[in-house]
Amino acid sequence: MPRFMDVHHGMHGITPEALHAAHQADLDIQAEEGVDFQHAWADPDSGTVWCLSDAPDAGAVQRIHERAGHPPTEVFAVPVEA
Amino acid sequence: MPRFMDVHHGMHGITPEALHAAHQADLDIQAEEGVDFQHAWADPDSGTVWCLSDAPDAGAVQRIHERAGHPPTEVFAVPVEA
Repeated sequence: MPRFMDVHHGMHGITPEALHAAHQADLDIQAEEGVDFQHAWADPDSGTVWCLSDAPDAGAVQRIHERAGHPPTEVFAVPVEA
Repeated sequence: MPRFMDVHHGMHGITPEALHAAHQADLDIQAEEGVDFQHAWADPDSGTVWCLSDAPDAGAVQRIHERAGHPPTEVFAVPVEA
């Protein structure tokens, strides 16, 4: 399944608790679109959050994040890894 | 040790071979600054590459990438994960 990195902006001061809650909100509904959110990293200073996922397509990532209440700024396919 | 996500732009069309070579160039010298590059993800279409690392500080990540020939556009601390 394709892999994606999505980026959220504007999450200044995000706490561990807030990130865990947001990540859990994704996990709770991700199966409905065949998405598998694997990890999230956050920089509270810049307000940037990155999420790594496997998904059928970028739209599925976008929709799950939107329904969970935190639409991403952008979703990138990452077919190349090292 | 602190964790970092750095972002490179302008790597349009990057191939698996090119990403592996760049990642290896980092691995070859990273110990000199106590950096541990863990993973790299690339989107050849947008030319964006993300690298995850543990390092003493952002400067060490910046210097290793510069010396390896691919300075990052930005280095973010990611003290929060889920």
